Amino acid sequence: MEKYSYQYLFDFTREVFMKMGCSSDHATTIADVFLAAELRDIPSHGMIRMKDYYQLWQKGRIKTKPGIRVVHETPSTAVVDGDMAVGMVPARFSMQLAIEKAASTGTGWVATRNSNHYGIAGYYAMMALENDMVGICLTNANPLVAPTFSVSPMMGTNPIAVAVPADRQPPFVADFATTPIARGKLAVAEKKGEKVALGFVQDSKGYPSDDPSILKSGGSMLTLGGDRLHGSHKGYCLSAMVDIFSAVFSGANFGPFVPPSVAYLPLLEEKVGEGTGHFFGAMRIDAFRDASEFKAAMDRWIETFRAAKPAEGQEKVLIPGDIEREAEERNIKHGITLVPAVRDDLKAIADALSVNFN
Amino acid sequence: MEKYSYQYLFDFTREVFMKMGCSSDHATTIADVFLAAELRDIPSHGMIRMKDYYQLWQKGRIKTKPGIRVVHETPSTAVVDGDMAVGMVPARFSMQLAIEKAASTGTGWVATRNSNHYGIAGYYAMMALENDMVGICLTNANPLVAPTFSVSPMMGTNPIAVAVPADRQPPFVADFATTPIARGKLAVAEKKGEKVALGFVQDSKGYPSDDPSILKSGGSMLTLGGDRLHGSHKGYCLSAMVDIFSAVFSGANFGPFVPPSVAYLPLLEEKVGEGTGHFFGAMRIDAFRDASEFKAAMDRWIETFRAAKPAEGQEKVLIPGDIEREAEERNIKHGITLVPAVRDDLKAIADALSVNFN
Repeated sequence: MEKYSYQYLFDFTREVFMKMGCSSDHATTIADVFLAAELRDIPSHGMIRMKDYYQLWQKGRIKTKPGIRVVHETPSTAVVDGDMAVGMVPARFSMQLAIEKAASTGTGWVATRNSNHYGIAGYYAMMALENDMVGICLTNANPLVAPTFSVSPMMGTNPIAVAVPADRQPPFVADFATTPIARGKLAVAEKKGEKVALGFVQDSKGYPSDDPSILKSGGSMLTLGGDRLHGSHKGYCLSAMVDIFSAVFSGANFGPFVPPSVAYLPLLEEKVGEGTGHFFGAMRIDAFRDASEFKAAMDRWIETFRAAKPAEGQEKVLIPGDIEREAEERNIKHGITLVPAVRDDLKAIADALSVNFN
Repeated sequence: MEKYSYQYLFDFTREVFMKMGCSSDHATTIADVFLAAELRDIPSHGMIRMKDYYQLWQKGRIKTKPGIRVVHETPSTAVVDGDMAVGMVPARFSMQLAIEKAASTGTGWVATRNSNHYGIAGYYAMMALENDMVGICLTNANPLVAPTFSVSPMMGTNPIAVAVPADRQPPFVADFATTPIARGKLAVAEKKGEKVALGFVQDSKGYPSDDPSILKSGGSMLTLGGDRLHGSHKGYCLSAMVDIFSAVFSGANFGPFVPPSVAYLPLLEEKVGEGTGHFFGAMRIDAFRDASEFKAAMDRWIETFRAAKPAEGQEKVLIPGDIEREAEERNIKHGITLVPAVRDDLKAIADALSVNFN
């Protein structure tokens, strides 16, 4: 385990992507999203993924000089084609466009196709905050999750992110997969040789399983709710909605056709659209109420929920975004820890691209 | 148990609300939503609720001659004040306004305050379909549900409804509470003297409970996910988002301040806004892609998911909306069953208002 400063990893990431051919602007965006994941204690979407992007680039499956363009629009909507770019680049472009549309018509909604994995959804939702807007961000992802009553992995962990500004209080920032747990937690349990709780995965016939490696033998992840009795069909609805908004709206691949975001899995032979799909929304708060009234109400909402009585043995009730904001403060101050395997991967990429990394 | 035809109950409901002072138009809307719930096999939001509206009206807590008005708007947004109307009336008005705004700017978003219980959320989302639009509808509701780590019932079962049009395939219609089960299922178990599965409710200290009557002794319902391990914090995020969109956007009461939708519970002394809040969205599909392309992609999405391999012991994989659509066809044909207690309540209201009911 070694600690790195935010600035060191930011500069390194920027340099790596510039060596791969990205413009300075694009590399800055990519580094910003990578580091946002590390700061917010979501390392599964941070430095560990640099190897995946690097290998996809080596295989020509992502472009570092993309021609991103708006292919359809109305006053409050647009569809963006990401031209196989590193996902962060069309994602930031699309959210910026949603924000511009919101500035002129109250709300802006952008669906994006032909993109790739874009890091943490929350990053883009939070871009709305400084504009006094509510931000929304969805994306589909590699199929690992089975619909209720099925054994076919048809959906990704399809996250939902929503950011709402307040005044005295920090913003409300929800950013969560529509599965009980993230894919990464299965990998961690597997490495440790541990079983997982029931309700996360099923075997190839659809029976409950506690084996974190079951995905390798025809198993699949379950949707939020876990089993039908506990509302897995609602998690299926949510995940399906994210997939439809991200891909049917934009013309990206949906469901089982979403291309793998890792180079060691081959591209699928069949496709129903272009690349991975995302969906972005921005809503001006003063399109609904006077902005200061809205923020005062949001402060009151947050204060009310923070004051909820904790369950026995619990210290306090959290507001979505609290944990990640506290992590951000801590990691900026004390540095970011990389596990040896990630450090070794980064070192290998650095050597291959003649970039300095210690 | 007795069967009634759709038309009989529709005409009866319409007449009851007209006797209470509603205009013919408003009464038609209310009857339409009541009957949609019955047809779609969601009787908890159908005829059984007539008594609640009747008693709220008797106590002057709902108005049957409301002055519904738009209090704020931009090209793609509005806030509507429902003036304490029967919820279906401002809800239909608001969704219609969202559809009109979508027709001109691509999307329309309406937040509504000072409303009441409005029946099933799916009804309003589905209004978008005939306009080749995607419909969205959210509402907050009486607090029964505790945020993760808390014992305070701060949120309603806050549903999410989304309707997406297709071409050859019937539309995708998701309409679900952000809790593992509906409140009504606890009542049914309680009446039968049965226990419920763990993961639905907790006791007053926050420990798991299988007692369906636990809400009467300080217990609360849990969010989708059930416990923290299985992602209840994600259900909390969802429910919170519905509450914020419905009430902070509109200026309605949020969280624990949402007024009871039954007359036997007193109005709260403290309020942070006006009445109950809803949120409506309409998105023209051709604001994103050529409408026929969008619908063809949606057909393909539905066909792909319908063809998912069923788990062992399951017959088929469902598309959101399948069950309700099949129920609608069955109930139109064979009639709607009312349990004796509901029939007796309707008869009493009919007698009090000099309306015929057998």
